[in-house]
Amino acid sequence: MLIVHKYGGTSVGSLERIENVATRVAKAREEGNDIVVVVSAMSGETNKLIEYANNFSSTPAKREMDMLLSSGERVTASLLAIALQERGVDAIAMTGRQAGILTDSNHTYARIESIDSKPMQSEIDKGKVVVVAGFQGINRDGAVTTLGRGGSDLSAVAIAGALHADACEIYSDVDGIYTTDPRIEPKAKKMDFVSYDEMLELASLGAKVLQNRSVELAKKLNVKMIAKSSFSDAEGTVIGEETEDMEAVLVSGIALDRNQARVTIREVSDKPGIAAEIFSKLAEEGINVDMIIQNASTTDGTTNLGFTVPTSEIEQAKAVIEAFDHDIGQMDLDDSVCKVSVVGVGMKSHTGVAATAFCALADENINIEMISTSEIKVSMIVSEKYAELAVRTLHASYNLDK
Amino acid sequence: MLIVHKYGGTSVGSLERIENVATRVAKAREEGNDIVVVVSAMSGETNKLIEYANNFSSTPAKREMDMLLSSGERVTASLLAIALQERGVDAIAMTGRQAGILTDSNHTYARIESIDSKPMQSEIDKGKVVVVAGFQGINRDGAVTTLGRGGSDLSAVAIAGALHADACEIYSDVDGIYTTDPRIEPKAKKMDFVSYDEMLELASLGAKVLQNRSVELAKKLNVKMIAKSSFSDAEGTVIGEETEDMEAVLVSGIALDRNQARVTIREVSDKPGIAAEIFSKLAEEGINVDMIIQNASTTDGTTNLGFTVPTSEIEQAKAVIEAFDHDIGQMDLDDSVCKVSVVGVGMKSHTGVAATAFCALADENINIEMISTSEIKVSMIVSEKYAELAVRTLHASYNLDK
Repeated sequence: MLIVHKYGGTSVGSLERIENVATRVAKAREEGNDIVVVVSAMSGETNKLIEYANNFSSTPAKREMDMLLSSGERVTASLLAIALQERGVDAIAMTGRQAGILTDSNHTYARIESIDSKPMQSEIDKGKVVVVAGFQGINRDGAVTTLGRGGSDLSAVAIAGALHADACEIYSDVDGIYTTDPRIEPKAKKMDFVSYDEMLELASLGAKVLQNRSVELAKKLNVKMIAKSSFSDAEGTVIGEETEDMEAVLVSGIALDRNQARVTIREVSDKPGIAAEIFSKLAEEGINVDMIIQNASTTDGTTNLGFTVPTSEIEQAKAVIEAFDHDIGQMDLDDSVCKVSVVGVGMKSHTGVAATAFCALADENINIEMISTSEIKVSMIVSEKYAELAVRTLHASYNLDK
Repeated sequence: MLIVHKYGGTSVGSLERIENVATRVAKAREEGNDIVVVVSAMSGETNKLIEYANNFSSTPAKREMDMLLSSGERVTASLLAIALQERGVDAIAMTGRQAGILTDSNHTYARIESIDSKPMQSEIDKGKVVVVAGFQGINRDGAVTTLGRGGSDLSAVAIAGALHADACEIYSDVDGIYTTDPRIEPKAKKMDFVSYDEMLELASLGAKVLQNRSVELAKKLNVKMIAKSSFSDAEGTVIGEETEDMEAVLVSGIALDRNQARVTIREVSDKPGIAAEIFSKLAEEGINVDMIIQNASTTDGTTNLGFTVPTSEIEQAKAVIEAFDHDIGQMDLDDSVCKVSVVGVGMKSHTGVAATAFCALADENINIEMISTSEIKVSMIVSEKYAELAVRTLHASYNLDK
């Protein structure tokens, strides 16, 4: 089997932890597998380099930032290869460029365009463990590019796809995907399997284990991901294509996102184009609008328009609305809300999932301020003070602790 | 004018110092010059990375060491480019690879084979200051290589040669080349000019300002080097081709090398090949033999063979000699010696330079244990306790303080 391992910043956060990773990789190699390892920078390194750059400029050039930031992963990759060699494991370190990772020129947030897997395959064929510096590639001009925060996950999945690896194991400090955050609901259970689509919803809704772009890419390339802990031997959670019998499981997990603020604009003229104009302006300013609710217009021909933005962008959103030149009514802001979401592919073929959620919250007297649904999730905005209670209530109401 | 600046680890040793370098480069640019800057890693960084690697292995693979160590210079180059851009100086950072530096595959001590100067020239033509990560290149396989300690000097000279730069200014924490070490002889004078050959002798004899390989390369490529301080505006010392009127200056400087140990082997059979065999064995072990003295044989057909090695290699040298299977006499070791040297191209056309040295030391009752001369230098091994006295005496005897 050819397996890609990916170790995040915490897993390689000290020299001792790099030794620990070397032990794990050596063991996987001894078991007869071909191994490619993708590593992040040691935790704290990337932030340190960003601080350095910000010391010189609040808007450092992105091309130079990429050259700067790509150095952390190279350090880890070199050190891990050295640690493996010392254990008698034949290993070779590669930069993103050497691993054939070609990206577009969108510095600090580049997209992988293609991977020339020949250099890696050639070393694998020689029996070597290939250790690749994650998070980076080069563009057509030969400039170093980086893939954005969490980009090493993306490197790992793309490499797994290019090499037709049997699995892409993503190691972190948690041992898999849980039905909800165990810090909130101690009865949360680790899932053995979760579908790409469910994982995408869970990740975008606040579960931090896997980066959304990497799950999207895994789905596209049909790469089997496994979320595992680098500090234990526990079985992880497989993220893969959903199967038919999965629909028997109604709901997979409950996600919580505290980073939400609600904006309501009252008495918006119910004329075509007004909402479009508001959201265009918000988009121009780079504000990430999440949920949007527009009620049917009242008898006076106006409507209430509600939406949520990340808490950090609330002031910016306020400024945009205040500068709006059409006649709109009062603006109401609330940054003490959160979003709880129920996720599961089983919803597709079952009715009543949303009703269960609404009833469960009503039983606890939790008022639902906004609702948004998709084929496989129901998201609800509630007051932040109810966050933990809402998660626990929903977790129990779908029997996720059983 | 096109000028290459090179800033060493101390000159870029902190964020404040990188700001200081940015100020200097911006000023040189404002004066209308085209500027290429070559930078070292921030002081301490390279040693930190070596310690990291040694934590995993006492003999880390050199290929991986190069990938590891090359990261430090990339960080400095990126940060300096960012600092320049913030000052409104158009700048671009380049890795060794991007700057077109192709080396052989002798990892950790690679030689520059060629420089494709087009990428740098193209940016210069756009009006940009090019900031190059020193100390590194790539080999024909695309692997990262490094040039050995002090390799950034070598990068700077090679780049100056490839771009036909008007000068290569080497910035450090000292403001030029002195007639001798000012810590020993406060009357030491900074030289305005020193020839390549004198600088080579001075560097190999203990003056630490410029790395020997870079001076050799500068001589070969006829690059004018200027040793300057990054902490003052003092004029530096030009290192260039010697001119005819230089011969009027008898002696340029006095160098001291404390890192010397003397080995004398008595009663070596004065047969052809014995000395050759001894020095071959020493070379096989990688021991750097410096001065060698063999006296004429005595009437019993034996001779005394003397040589010096770096102090750190004395035990190794002893082991080689003791394992020698021919009949040789007693070995006498002395690690409390030093080498004082008188250097000057003027010696070529003047007699009596050596005699002046011998007389000066004799006047102070300093016994000369070994002597070695070349066209432009006289080196003498004396007891280390006389080191400072010998330097001051010789400095005065050639009127270098005038």
